[in-house]
Amino acid sequence: MITQVDHIGIAVQDLEDAMTLYRTLFQVADFHREQVADQGVDIASFQLGEVRIELTAPLHAESPIAKFIEKRGEGIHHVAFRSDAITSDLAGLASNGIRLINEQPQRGAHEMLIAFLHPKSTGGVLMELCSEDG
Amino acid sequence: MITQVDHIGIAVQDLEDAMTLYRTLFQVADFHREQVADQGVDIASFQLGEVRIELTAPLHAESPIAKFIEKRGEGIHHVAFRSDAITSDLAGLASNGIRLINEQPQRGAHEMLIAFLHPKSTGGVLMELCSEDG
Repeated sequence: MITQVDHIGIAVQDLEDAMTLYRTLFQVADFHREQVADQGVDIASFQLGEVRIELTAPLHAESPIAKFIEKRGEGIHHVAFRSDAITSDLAGLASNGIRLINEQPQRGAHEMLIAFLHPKSTGGVLMELCSEDG
Repeated sequence: MITQVDHIGIAVQDLEDAMTLYRTLFQVADFHREQVADQGVDIASFQLGEVRIELTAPLHAESPIAKFIEKRGEGIHHVAFRSDAITSDLAGLASNGIRLINEQPQRGAHEMLIAFLHPKSTGGVLMELCSEDG
């Protein structure tokens, strides 16, 4: 079952500039920093209530985030929802006709299991499911 | 001070279709329904943890949501953040160089005071501040 919004992923060109902006907007004292080489991304995130805001910059020109920014500009990239049973939730969505980008959960940032749903079947919103365990 | 994500606004072409989709995705039992004539929008929303998901369809072709969909397609339109002191938060942001779409809070859905920040000064993200009181 999906229980809450886990995080909002925001595509940014320059991570240092974005951190300066978000310090101004939200008085962020400390960012959690992480790179996910598989996805070619450099991340600075912070917690706001129960939602994490995840600023995501490309590590190189082939990163999906670089391609997103090239096509649509900087802005909201995806919304991630916390699932308490990701494998069965994915199966349930697939059986209801939702197209999955990841049929099986992958290892993502924050040691979580993640899977993306295809925006063509979710009204143009790139959605991620994530879970602390399977 | 900004304390949490209040809601995520999602632009949809057809509200009935979107409700059917979100029932599948999130097992939504009941939607809160509301029209905001000023903004030309028809809204169906539901609560997911501490965040409200706000499906927003245009009431007519001149609605800002109609123009958004025409330009960018369906998808995430804005993120709203809960402020506990919206007037002074807006003044603080303006004094830090953040461009405001609404200099003064306006009356929005759910009887809240709202104000939008300009995406040109927030890294391409249309942000709303909202508050239950001033």
